[in-house]
Amino acid sequence: MSVFTVLTKLSISMIAGTRYYSKIGFIGLGNMGGHMAINLLKKGYKLTVYDINESVMTNLAEAGASCVSNVTEISRETNVIISMLPSNQHVLDVYTSKNGVLSTAQKNVLLIDSSTVDPSVSQLIALQARKRNLRFIDSPVSGGVNAAKDGTLTFMVGGTEMDFNDAKPILEALGSKIVHCGDVGMGQAAKLCNNMLLAISMIGTAEAFNLGQKLGLDAKILANVVNSSTGRCWSSDLYNPVPGILPNVPSSKNYEGGFGTTLMAKDLGLAQSIATRTQAPIPLGSLAHQIYTTVITQGFSNKDFSVIYQFFKGKN
Amino acid sequence: MSVFTVLTKLSISMIAGTRYYSKIGFIGLGNMGGHMAINLLKKGYKLTVYDINESVMTNLAEAGASCVSNVTEISRETNVIISMLPSNQHVLDVYTSKNGVLSTAQKNVLLIDSSTVDPSVSQLIALQARKRNLRFIDSPVSGGVNAAKDGTLTFMVGGTEMDFNDAKPILEALGSKIVHCGDVGMGQAAKLCNNMLLAISMIGTAEAFNLGQKLGLDAKILANVVNSSTGRCWSSDLYNPVPGILPNVPSSKNYEGGFGTTLMAKDLGLAQSIATRTQAPIPLGSLAHQIYTTVITQGFSNKDFSVIYQFFKGKN
Amino acid sequence: MSVFTVLTKLSISMIAGTRYYSKIGFIGLGNMGGHMAINLLKKGYKLTVYDINESVMTNLAEAGASCVSNVTEISRETNVIISMLPSNQHVLDVYTSKNGVLSTAQKNVLLIDSSTVDPSVSQLIALQARKRNLRFIDSPVSGGVNAAKDGTLTFMVGGTEMDFNDAKPILEALGSKIVHCGDVGMGQAAKLCNNMLLAISMIGTAEAFNLGQKLGLDAKILANVVNSSTGRCWSSDLYNPVPGILPNVPSSKNYEGGFGTTLMAKDLGLAQSIATRTQAPIPLGSLAHQIYTTVITQGFSNKDFSVIYQFFKGKN
Amino acid sequence: MSVFTVLTKLSISMIAGTRYYSKIGFIGLGNMGGHMAINLLKKGYKLTVYDINESVMTNLAEAGASCVSNVTEISRETNVIISMLPSNQHVLDVYTSKNGVLSTAQKNVLLIDSSTVDPSVSQLIALQARKRNLRFIDSPVSGGVNAAKDGTLTFMVGGTEMDFNDAKPILEALGSKIVHCGDVGMGQAAKLCNNMLLAISMIGTAEAFNLGQKLGLDAKILANVVNSSTGRCWSSDLYNPVPGILPNVPSSKNYEGGFGTTLMAKDLGLAQSIATRTQAPIPLGSLAHQIYTTVITQGFSNKDFSVIYQFFKGKN
Repeated sequence: MSVFTVLTKLSISMIAGTRYYSKIGFIGLGNMGGHMAINLLKKGYKLTVYDINESVMTNLAEAGASCVSNVTEISRETNVIISMLPSNQHVLDVYTSKNGVLSTAQKNVLLIDSSTVDPSVSQLIALQARKRNLRFIDSPVSGGVNAAKDGTLTFMVGGTEMDFNDAKPILEALGSKIVHCGDVGMGQAAKLCNNMLLAISMIGTAEAFNLGQKLGLDAKILANVVNSSTGRCWSSDLYNPVPGILPNVPSSKNYEGGFGTTLMAKDLGLAQSIATRTQAPIPLGSLAHQIYTTVITQGFSNKDFSVIYQFFKGKN
Repeated sequence: MSVFTVLTKLSISMIAGTRYYSKIGFIGLGNMGGHMAINLLKKGYKLTVYDINESVMTNLAEAGASCVSNVTEISRETNVIISMLPSNQHVLDVYTSKNGVLSTAQKNVLLIDSSTVDPSVSQLIALQARKRNLRFIDSPVSGGVNAAKDGTLTFMVGGTEMDFNDAKPILEALGSKIVHCGDVGMGQAAKLCNNMLLAISMIGTAEAFNLGQKLGLDAKILANVVNSSTGRCWSSDLYNPVPGILPNVPSSKNYEGGFGTTLMAKDLGLAQSIATRTQAPIPLGSLAHQIYTTVITQGFSNKDFSVIYQFFKGKN
Repeated sequence: MSVFTVLTKLSISMIAGTRYYSKIGFIGLGNMGGHMAINLLKKGYKLTVYDINESVMTNLAEAGASCVSNVTEISRETNVIISMLPSNQHVLDVYTSKNGVLSTAQKNVLLIDSSTVDPSVSQLIALQARKRNLRFIDSPVSGGVNAAKDGTLTFMVGGTEMDFNDAKPILEALGSKIVHCGDVGMGQAAKLCNNMLLAISMIGTAEAFNLGQKLGLDAKILANVVNSSTGRCWSSDLYNPVPGILPNVPSSKNYEGGFGTTLMAKDLGLAQSIATRTQAPIPLGSLAHQIYTTVITQGFSNKDFSVIYQFFKGKN
Repeated sequence: MSVFTVLTKLSISMIAGTRYYSKIGFIGLGNMGGHMAINLLKKGYKLTVYDINESVMTNLAEAGASCVSNVTEISRETNVIISMLPSNQHVLDVYTSKNGVLSTAQKNVLLIDSSTVDPSVSQLIALQARKRNLRFIDSPVSGGVNAAKDGTLTFMVGGTEMDFNDAKPILEALGSKIVHCGDVGMGQAAKLCNNMLLAISMIGTAEAFNLGQKLGLDAKILANVVNSSTGRCWSSDLYNPVPGILPNVPSSKNYEGGFGTTLMAKDLGLAQSIATRTQAPIPLGSLAHQIYTTVITQGFSNKDFSVIYQFFKGKN
C-alpha cells in the first residue's frame, strides 16, 4: 500500500469522523441477514438493503434502512457491501452476473461475503474483484440465528491483513469474535472443517448415548463420565442430544430451534465437495453427510441436527 | 507418601477395625497391571501377585510382593482380588475355569476386574460369583500407561453401592477419579461408549485438519477456531493429531507412546459387539472400527491412535 | 478310518437297502426346519422331531413323524441328527448343554447343523464331537422359505470328505445343490461371505436406482444398462428392489415374503463378528450391517431386505 | 421436424451415399479418444482432429486425419463433432468458451460428447446448443481402453430420438452396443449409476474374498459358491480381484491395465456430486468414493480398481 493511499484513506476516515465505512449495503435479509442488518442500524450505520423477496425488507425500512430494488442500486451508494446468501449459486449471481456487484460497485469498495460457500467460489470472486479494483473478503459465521440476533456471532475471515482490519470494526457490531483465518477462502475453509467435525461429534455422541442406554447405563452418568474424559466434545457437554441432560438445548425442547438438519447437510455437502477436489479422504465426514441426507428423507428436515439421537433410538 | 500419612492411615484403619481389605491379590501384571500393583505396594498394601508370564513378576517380588504360580494360590490368601487382563477370554478363563477365582476364592471376597471387556462378560461372572457368595465389580480404567504409573487413572465402576464403597479406598490408591456408573457391567458400558466417541472424534479431527491444510489453511489457526467453537473436542484441544500443534502429545513425538491403534481397535470391536447385541445403530463407531482395522493392515499397528492423521495425509 | 470300519459301514449300508441313514432326528421346526422335515418324510425317511415350541410339532406328527419332548430322546433313536436353529446360543445349548446332543448321542452318529452361526461355533462343537466319537458337519443353507418348501435349497457344507459324502444323499432330499466348502466351519464361512456381498450389492443397487430416478432416468432403462454392463449383480437382475421391474420379487409385492431385514441384519452381525476376530477390514459390509440395523429401528423389520430402496427413496 | 427438413435431410443423405455425416471432427485424443478416432478413419470417415497436446496428433495424421490447431477450425469443416475429454471443466471450456464449439459450429451440426461428466453439464450445454440451432447429445462409454481399441465400447446416450438415430451409425463404428437412455444427461446418469454400483460390488467382493480366506476358505471354492448364488456380480464372476481365480483379468496381472483407481475415484466424485444435488442418500457409494480416495493416498493410483483386494489384505 503506498503512502499516498494510506494518507488518502486516513483523511477520508477522519472526514467521516469515527467511521470510515459509514455507508453499508446489505444483500440477503433472511433468518440470519435480517438480524445482522438490524444490528448494524442499531450501532448507527447508515444502511441500504436489498433482498429478492421484497416482503422481508419492510422490517428494515421501519428500522431506518433505505430499501432498494436491485443490486446495482446498492452498489451506487455504499462503500462497504455485506452479503448473506444461501448458496454458491446465489453468491455467484449476486457478485458476477451482468448487473452484479462486481460490475456495478465503486472502486475500492470493501465486499464482505458472510454466506457459507465453497472456498473456491470466494477465491474466484476475489480474483475478479481485484481486477476491478474492488476488495473482497469471505467471512462466514457460526452461532446461528440467536447469535445473529444478539450480535454475538463468530466471524471466520479470509482476506488480506488490511481488508481484515478494515472489516473488523464493522463485524464487531455483529459478532463477539472475529478471527482472521488467512487469505481469501480460508474463512470458508475454517468454517466447513469446523462444521464437519461438529457433525461427526454430534453423530458420535448420539451413537454413544443411545448405545449406553440400550446397555442399561444412565444418560446423566454417561454424560458425567464422557465430559470429564477423552470423549468430551461440544456436542456432549454443551449441546447434548439426549433430552433432559441439559436444560436449554434443542434436545430438551423437542429439537426445535437450533441448527437444522438441512443446514448441516448443506455444509457437509460443501465439505464433501472441497474434499473431493483436494483428494482429501473424509470417510466419517462423508458418512455424516449421508446420515443427515437420510435423516432428511425420513422426515426430520425441520429439526435441530441433534435429532440424530432420536433417529438412532428409533420408533418404540 | 510420608511416614506420618502412613501411620495415620494405619491407625484410622485400626480404628475402623483393622482395615478390612489389607490382603490383596493381583492377577495380570502387564503394561498396566504392573504399575498398578507397584502403586498398591507403595501405599502399604500387602500384595500377592500372579501372571502367566513368570518373568514379569521379578519386579514385583523386588518391590515386596509375594509371587505365586497360579490363581488358586491367589485365592487362598486374599480378601480382595484385582485383575487386569487383555481380553474377554482371558477374563473368563481366570474367573470361571475349573481352578479359577470363582471356584477357589473364599466367601465374601471382593473381586475387582479392571480389564476392558464386554459388559455381558462382567455380568455373567457377577451372576456366578453371587451364587458362590462372592462379590464382583467391573472397574475398567482410562488414562493409559502413564496414568497407571502415576496413580492417576480414572476408574469406571459397575456394581452395588456397597461393593463400590468398599472398593473405592483401594482404587484411590491407583487413580484420581473413581466413578460409580451403575450396576455390574456399567463400568464397561461407560468406558466403551466413551472410547467409541473418542475414536470418532479423533478420526473426525484428523479428517478436518487434513482437509483444512489441503485447502491452504494453517493448522494452528484451524486449531484456534475449532477449539473455541462447536467442533471442539478432547482430540482437537488436548491431543491434536497434527505434529507441532501441542508439544507433549504423541503426534509431536512421531506418534510414539500413547494409546495404540491396536488397543483402540480392540475397544471398538467390543463396542461393535455390544451394539450388535442391543441392535443400536453405530454407523460412525462401526466405520471408525473398520478404519482402525485398515490402518493396522497398512502397518501402523505400533503407533498411537492419532496416527490416523498421517494415514489420511498419505504418502506425498 | 480302518478298512474294518469301512467294510462294516458298507455292510450295514447294504443291509439297510439303499439308505444307511434311515433314522433321522430333526431339531428345530421353525419356518425353515418345518418344511425341511416334511420333505424328509416325503422322501421316505423315518423321522423323530423336537422343537422347544410344542405346537409346531403337530403338523409333523400328522405327516408321520415321531415327536419327542427333549433332545435326549432324539439322540436315543437316531443315527443322523439335523438341526436348524436361530442363533449361536441356541446351537450351543442344543449341542453342548448337560443333556445336549453331544452328551446323549450314540457313537458315530452324524450331526448336521444347518443353522447359520459363527464358524467358530461349528468348529468348537466339531472338536468336542470328535472327542466323543461323534461326527459333525456344518451345512447352512441359502434359498429361503420357498426353497425349503420346494426342496431346492443350496447347502454349503463344512466337514471331512467322508462326512460330506455321507450327508450328501440326505441333503439331496432337501436341496438341489450341495457344495463341499472345506473343513468344518467353511460352510458357515462361505454362507456369511456370500450374504455379506449380497447385502452390499442390494444396498448398492437401491442407491443406484434411487439416484438414477432422482436424476430423471427411467428405472427400466437403467436396469437394462446395468444388467448388461459392469454393475450387474443378482440384486439388480433377479431381485430388483424397484417395484415393477421384475414381476415376482418382493419389491413388486409390497416387499412381503422373501428374506427379511432382521435375518439379513443377523447374518451381517455374524460376518462382522468373524471379521473382527480375523482382523479383516470390511468397511462396506460393516456399513451394510449398520444400515439394516437402522432400517429396523425405523420400522421396516417385517419387510424383505430389498425394502432398503424405499428407505432411501424416503417420505416425500 | 417438418416434411421439408426430412426431405432435405434424406436427399443430402442420398447424395453422400450411405453416410449422411461423412465429415467428423474429433476433440480430445487421449487414451480413449485416440483409439476411437483411429476406428473412425478405418471405417472410412473423413476426420478432422484436435487435441491441446499436439504430440498426440502425429499418429492420427499418419492414419489420414487432418490435424488442426484449435476448436474453431474443427467447427469450420465438419457436420458432426465428437468430444472425449477428462473433466467437467474441459468439456465446459471446449463447448462454451469464447471460441468454443457452441460459438463456432455451423447450424444443425450434431455434437456428441463422449466424456464422462456431471449430467447437469451436458444439460447446460444442450440448452445453449439449442439456442444456437445446434444439436447435442451425451454419450459416455464403458469398456475401457481395450474396448476403445477394438471398437467394442458401450455407448449410453442421452438426447432426442432423432439425434440418437442420427448418431447411432457413427457410434456403431466405435462400439458394439448403443443404448438410448432418455433425454440429454441420461447417458451420464446411467453411466454414473452403473459405475457407482460397480465400485460398490468390487469393494464388497474384495471384502468377502479377503474375509473368507482369513477364515480358511479357499478362494476358488468361494468364487464357485458366490457365482452361483445371491452374491454373484460382475466383479466376482468376470473380474475377480483375487489373483489366480480368472486368467485374463488385472488381478492376475499384478493389477496392471484395466480401469484405474483414479478414474474410478473421478466417477464416484461425480456420482457423489449429483447425489448431493438431488438429495439422494448413497451411503455405500459415498464410502466407496472415500475408500478409493484413501487407496490413492496410500500409493495405489496406478493400479486397476480391483487392487482394493490387496489393500484390504494388507502388508504381510
